[in-house]
Amino acid sequence: MPSAISVVTLLTDFGDRDYFVASMKGVILNINSQARIVDLSHGVRPQDIEEGAHLLSACYHYFPDGTVHIAVVDPGVGTTRRALLVTTSRYFFLAPDNGILTYALEQETGIEVRAIENKQYRLDADGATFDGRDLFAPSAAWLTRGQPPGSYGPMIRDMVKLPVQAPDWKDGAMVGQIVYVDRFGNLISNLTPLQIKEVQGAHRRDTVTVRIGGATIEGLSPSYEQGEASEPHALINSNGRIEVYVKNGNAAERLGVGRGERISVL
Amino acid sequence: MPSAISVVTLLTDFGDRDYFVASMKGVILNINSQARIVDLSHGVRPQDIEEGAHLLSACYHYFPDGTVHIAVVDPGVGTTRRALLVTTSRYFFLAPDNGILTYALEQETGIEVRAIENKQYRLDADGATFDGRDLFAPSAAWLTRGQPPGSYGPMIRDMVKLPVQAPDWKDGAMVGQIVYVDRFGNLISNLTPLQIKEVQGAHRRDTVTVRIGGATIEGLSPSYEQGEASEPHALINSNGRIEVYVKNGNAAERLGVGRGERISVL
Amino acid sequence: MPSAISVVTLLTDFGDRDYFVASMKGVILNINSQARIVDLSHGVRPQDIEEGAHLLSACYHYFPDGTVHIAVVDPGVGTTRRALLVTTSRYFFLAPDNGILTYALEQETGIEVRAIENKQYRLDADGATFDGRDLFAPSAAWLTRGQPPGSYGPMIRDMVKLPVQAPDWKDGAMVGQIVYVDRFGNLISNLTPLQIKEVQGAHRRDTVTVRIGGATIEGLSPSYEQGEASEPHALINSNGRIEVYVKNGNAAERLGVGRGERISVL
Repeated sequence: MPSAISVVTLLTDFGDRDYFVASMKGVILNINSQARIVDLSHGVRPQDIEEGAHLLSACYHYFPDGTVHIAVVDPGVGTTRRALLVTTSRYFFLAPDNGILTYALEQETGIEVRAIENKQYRLDADGATFDGRDLFAPSAAWLTRGQPPGSYGPMIRDMVKLPVQAPDWKDGAMVGQIVYVDRFGNLISNLTPLQIKEVQGAHRRDTVTVRIGGATIEGLSPSYEQGEASEPHALINSNGRIEVYVKNGNAAERLGVGRGERISVL
Repeated sequence: MPSAISVVTLLTDFGDRDYFVASMKGVILNINSQARIVDLSHGVRPQDIEEGAHLLSACYHYFPDGTVHIAVVDPGVGTTRRALLVTTSRYFFLAPDNGILTYALEQETGIEVRAIENKQYRLDADGATFDGRDLFAPSAAWLTRGQPPGSYGPMIRDMVKLPVQAPDWKDGAMVGQIVYVDRFGNLISNLTPLQIKEVQGAHRRDTVTVRIGGATIEGLSPSYEQGEASEPHALINSNGRIEVYVKNGNAAERLGVGRGERISVL
Repeated sequence: MPSAISVVTLLTDFGDRDYFVASMKGVILNINSQARIVDLSHGVRPQDIEEGAHLLSACYHYFPDGTVHIAVVDPGVGTTRRALLVTTSRYFFLAPDNGILTYALEQETGIEVRAIENKQYRLDADGATFDGRDLFAPSAAWLTRGQPPGSYGPMIRDMVKLPVQAPDWKDGAMVGQIVYVDRFGNLISNLTPLQIKEVQGAHRRDTVTVRIGGATIEGLSPSYEQGEASEPHALINSNGRIEVYVKNGNAAERLGVGRGERISVL
């Protein structure tokens, strides 16, 4: 279990125009005015759990040990889906039990998953449920004040997970998929340098060919600066994933593809 | 008067693309580098005082006692409209005298309203007036350093207020209006559970009928998960207001209505 | 050299939807969990160094002495362009060597420019270069913990600068240009009150005429509240620049002009 410091991160699909995120911050500061609150993003597409899961997994691990990560993309708010407190050897995570922690927890050790059942950490509120404000925010704030995870509820073993579609061989190629599209239209896959090496070993050559959306890309670029503008290129991005980009352009638009698109390396 | 802690919130219509908000934050930190600055929102529609007033009233009260709330939606900047410092039993508010505090102050007690006249808290600047940066930000920062409200200027009794259109009976129905439309297109009214109970009592039934924009909605849902997609539904939202939504959709677009629209409960 | 306090500002073109900015914040807090991180803006148009340079210069100087300003608009990331640490009598600046500091440094004294060569402050990462996260963020965080600038690398004298197009006389008028367009469509020029006075002195009159995009504006307004709606007007803005605006409207759209447009005062 990490020691309690007071960094709290927020990942939601609430946008930053309304009062939803501010309400969560107010609740946290009202319990611990020393908490340091950091926005991961509030621009997740509404109710897009998978996008939230990838976004979280791409940046949560840069934060100091003991950080409390709140991730609320929650189509099931108001239903009986459980609320989770997950502790790992480095972090705390608070989220609805809908799979949003799947990709982050793949990178963690010492995982303990609890259902938050103790009503002591919940704000009373009339009307429709707003667990971001009334459950997750106060639960996080009390963690930063040293409340032990065991006091939140019992450990559970059947946490919901998103399907993990690991890349695999098919017809002589390593086949993965696009898992995230960033604001620049860059297409980020679930393929890593490990799989690239596997392909290179199997085919006994130093380079690879990437296929996606009808396009064929020869070789990997060392940086976004390489290659002709308006043509798709591929590189290993700064998070260690194969990414398809168009220099000074939008690869998603150029290729007419999005998340879930198949990408092959051969 | 609240004791001075160092949380400062910012609500503006400046957007977050330019240097306006950052300038305000710099000024605050230059006076009190320990201040904790929280963005309520900078996405208020330009010069839309009423939207700002509702947004503020929906979240300011979650913050710790002693928080300094700055609200700058200010079509009259550069004219002779007054600048206000309002203290209540819990908070400080700094805002132009144009009604933006109306709905927040309805929820407060121990209200004292002052016109900020002491030029000591103002930054000198040439050119057009930018009171957010030159008056409200430094005034707030000095409050967090313990400057007494009395030193800012004299108490006044004729603060500008927005018209409060309270729901009322008309032709056998309780009639209110839409006061806020959030980013999801949800339509938030000024009707509360109290008025729902009044209607139920008068009509001697357990349910209600909601009418808005030509649509008729039978009964209130317990959560956003209820009901058919693409059809309008109503519930009591997490702030205790009647809200009209479309499951996984945009109620404002679906019904072709916006703020100011009449909503009837019978 | 400023004394080290722990305010760090971030200016980028990364947007706030993805995990790029959050990664930088995590890295900073992991090195100094007491750092106070402030977003200047992440809405710079992608790779628009000049826009970033103007935005930085308009607000950096409101922050307390010792603030560390990170500015990452970096079309050359992954190439051999240098990374800079600039110290002035008030601040630290960290940025790629592409001119983005040009307009801020015009206002500073005691300038020392270093190329960051010490690899000790760099995070190891595979794949494409993300200097915002792997170089600038950790370098800034270590500065707030008191690492001396001299330990980052050698002083250099050939820093890249943007061309500074100072206003000048042409055909009896003082001619400048639009250097920034804000979210409201206001057109901000590089003309200052000094040049206005010079024109008034030369023409021996108390007022001036402003010409831009085919429009002729007589005199300067004292505030945005002046003048007819839908007509262009000019004033000295809150940063001491001549600015063209349309009351309750968008001057850039109304005049069909943007950054780089010529503006004459006579």
